[in-house]
Amino acid sequence: MESKFDKLRSYLAEALDLLYVTGLLSWDQQTNMPPNGAEARGQITGTIERLLHLRASSPELGQMLEDLKSEVNNLDPDSDDARLYKVTLREYERRTKVPPELVTELAETIGLAYSSWEKAKAENDFPTFKPFLEKIVELRRTYAKLFAPYDHIYDPLLAEFEPGMKTADVKEIFNALRPQQVELIREITAKPQVDDAPLTQHFDPKKQWDFGVEVITKFGYDWKSGRLDEVVHPFTIGIGKGDTRITTRILPEYIGSGLFSTMHECGHALYDMGASEKRARTILGQIRSLGLHESQSRLYENLVGRSLPFWQHFYPRLQSLFPSQLGNVSLEAFYKGINKVEPSLIRIEADEATYNLHIMLRLELEISLMEGSLEVVDLPEAWNARMKEYLGVTPTSDSEGVLQDVHWSHGYFGYFSTYALGNLISLQWWEKIYQDIPDLDDQFRRGEFGALLTWLRENIHYHGAKFDAQELVQKITGSKIDPAPYMRYLRNKYTDIYGL
Amino acid sequence: MESKFDKLRSYLAEALDLLYVTGLLSWDQQTNMPPNGAEARGQITGTIERLLHLRASSPELGQMLEDLKSEVNNLDPDSDDARLYKVTLREYERRTKVPPELVTELAETIGLAYSSWEKAKAENDFPTFKPFLEKIVELRRTYAKLFAPYDHIYDPLLAEFEPGMKTADVKEIFNALRPQQVELIREITAKPQVDDAPLTQHFDPKKQWDFGVEVITKFGYDWKSGRLDEVVHPFTIGIGKGDTRITTRILPEYIGSGLFSTMHECGHALYDMGASEKRARTILGQIRSLGLHESQSRLYENLVGRSLPFWQHFYPRLQSLFPSQLGNVSLEAFYKGINKVEPSLIRIEADEATYNLHIMLRLELEISLMEGSLEVVDLPEAWNARMKEYLGVTPTSDSEGVLQDVHWSHGYFGYFSTYALGNLISLQWWEKIYQDIPDLDDQFRRGEFGALLTWLRENIHYHGAKFDAQELVQKITGSKIDPAPYMRYLRNKYTDIYGL
Repeated sequence: MESKFDKLRSYLAEALDLLYVTGLLSWDQQTNMPPNGAEARGQITGTIERLLHLRASSPELGQMLEDLKSEVNNLDPDSDDARLYKVTLREYERRTKVPPELVTELAETIGLAYSSWEKAKAENDFPTFKPFLEKIVELRRTYAKLFAPYDHIYDPLLAEFEPGMKTADVKEIFNALRPQQVELIREITAKPQVDDAPLTQHFDPKKQWDFGVEVITKFGYDWKSGRLDEVVHPFTIGIGKGDTRITTRILPEYIGSGLFSTMHECGHALYDMGASEKRARTILGQIRSLGLHESQSRLYENLVGRSLPFWQHFYPRLQSLFPSQLGNVSLEAFYKGINKVEPSLIRIEADEATYNLHIMLRLELEISLMEGSLEVVDLPEAWNARMKEYLGVTPTSDSEGVLQDVHWSHGYFGYFSTYALGNLISLQWWEKIYQDIPDLDDQFRRGEFGALLTWLRENIHYHGAKFDAQELVQKITGSKIDPAPYMRYLRNKYTDIYGL
Repeated sequence: MESKFDKLRSYLAEALDLLYVTGLLSWDQQTNMPPNGAEARGQITGTIERLLHLRASSPELGQMLEDLKSEVNNLDPDSDDARLYKVTLREYERRTKVPPELVTELAETIGLAYSSWEKAKAENDFPTFKPFLEKIVELRRTYAKLFAPYDHIYDPLLAEFEPGMKTADVKEIFNALRPQQVELIREITAKPQVDDAPLTQHFDPKKQWDFGVEVITKFGYDWKSGRLDEVVHPFTIGIGKGDTRITTRILPEYIGSGLFSTMHECGHALYDMGASEKRARTILGQIRSLGLHESQSRLYENLVGRSLPFWQHFYPRLQSLFPSQLGNVSLEAFYKGINKVEPSLIRIEADEATYNLHIMLRLELEISLMEGSLEVVDLPEAWNARMKEYLGVTPTSDSEGVLQDVHWSHGYFGYFSTYALGNLISLQWWEKIYQDIPDLDDQFRRGEFGALLTWLRENIHYHGAKFDAQELVQKITGSKIDPAPYMRYLRNKYTDIYGL
């Protein structure tokens, strides 16, 4: 006989199929779709998203959840079923709180805002984008207010990307972190700069591609369950169990782009593959916490991919592929080059030491906009002032300032902080991993990455979306999200590199 | 104010979006999907097909059609709205007649039958496939009986692939055609055989690809609205307006495969592109008649692509790409080679003169199976007997006999005859086109294919699914589907080539 939970699982499985379809539609749009297909693609995607929303907010689902209420009370709160119930209920309540008219108005505004942003960025023209951003801020405030009462109006926005996390928590974490990062950068910039010129030469894209494939194959990326393609903005997408695709961007004149974006996306993919191993076609197989997701991608990109032991293994191979470019560049010089710290204007080009400051700036501005203590008209000035304060640099145009990111034009408020949280969490895993696998550096030097993946699989990936970020960090490390490990890591690393 | 027809169109547009999604899922599965994604892909496709079926057979749609009934009576029966109503009603009635349990049972049986067929074909083991085929035949008979009363039990099956066509019509057409084709082949095989050895040499796949691209670009294939990929079994798929993709199969040791499959699929694609130009996102943009569809693909593959004027233009170019293979092969020898007639065992390798006989054999066997006058156990023997009778050859194994085609394992009964109907119809267009464009041969010799496409666009593509095959043939040529033009064409062509 089908249990009530089986019934819920079957119902959700079909909703997930629709989610997978949106994934395929998006992947295809960015990799294969002919240009004239764009209009139809928008309609098709809209239809699938509507059907998904209907299914995920239906009275039928509400009734199933209602029917399960008493049963859940008798379950271990950490059991799969109890967690499935919790995660589903939260998502259901979120969706049913938002009137369809608001969803439509937001979608239409975003459509216009995105085009306006693209143009404004290209032409350094914030004023034309301003009314669209004002409208989005207004709609996002309206959206957030649907979830009252709350501790902070920003909470419901944050919850979309980082379920369970409160604005106050994030502020506390970042407030502890900010002065330490600012101080570290001050110390670094007082030292002689390292040379990263060898990274910007001509590197044959095909060889770059092959090297990336070699690396992530060693990481454990399963080519029978995925594929790699080139796109303008790299991303990872899961299209059901056994199909987790990654993308990368290779620049012929700079080796850093393809190298680190391939490793970054591989980190995301390993997480998705590991989660769907047991939890395929259940909502617990869909990681909702972007912070946790970034903790995996940044771990592979930075903690592995920018580490000395990693390059002790891989650098000779890279040199053999690019003898004329790197034959005379020492391992040490290369290692320093890929870890160069330089306060700069653009977030996506930022190094490990400065990256989080770009995030904090955005978080603070978002919070002020939602609180109403900052007006959109004053945003460029506020942006530039904070850039000066945190990073010591000032944009000479809004294109390289307030207009640089796509997120706000897409209506994403609450997204940015997950990037920084991911960095912090990755170090909390890292310290625990080194306790459990003390010879990890030696393994990397031998080109062995299997023990690392096994650890991540068992401790993190396996759980899928069962636990929120704070819960999982607590469970694995015994403490909450904490910036101290990250600061220890940065200080150690740059003490070596810059001789602090 | 939204009219009742607008309401219907909106409703159907979303159903079509789901249909487009099944197209993308299938295209992706055959071109890009990693192998481990197969199981999830089956589930996702199943979900989308269920949602599509629900929408296309819903009481809501039934009510909309009911509400339009009186309105339709006042319309010109050839108007878009009247035809939209007719086509939608027919599809709705077809879908609502079939109980969901039968759909599920058929889908499950096909899943098993397909695997069994693959194995049986590889191992020349008809007996293991037999019980699955028996089950499929039984389910297809059950299916057909849901549509009683009918003139013939095969009618409802045929209608799935060739709406509006009756078994009696097809039989009549084929009965007139068969003796003439058998006689023609007898005459040809009495003559000295032509030499097609130059076609089976090594031809660099990249150059084959490029040549195919050159040809279909001249045909008018719009690369901004499509793309070409390699697959094992080539097909064309429309994924909404502005996105009609084709696939091909290139063999390094035989130039015929890539060459003619690229042109064949281009014919399908031009039809889809032309139909969706005006009728995108309406059900009239989806051509249901496979016979009409084949009339376009076979026209480009055979009437254009195997014609002398075409090669008078393109052969020097092909020679320049393959000087060592074709430099010493005259245009005449090449033209004869690609038009060689040889009765053989395998349908998909058959030439223009023998192809239809492969079809007739299948049609007759299908009809007998549905009538119950032939048992599955006797199928191999019946197959072989007819091969001997029509083509003078006898399979030495069931793998190259009754097991050769995938169709029956997929539950497709009623499909095959559309291939032959397409051939016949293509010649009916062709004779009309030459009346309207008398200098078409000269245009081809100059590499001009624009007037041909314009004619097809205006007379055929433009209508989309407004008219059934018989209706459209009648409308354009003034007569019903008629084998005479096809026989005239074959006789002329092979009189030249074989000196009959």
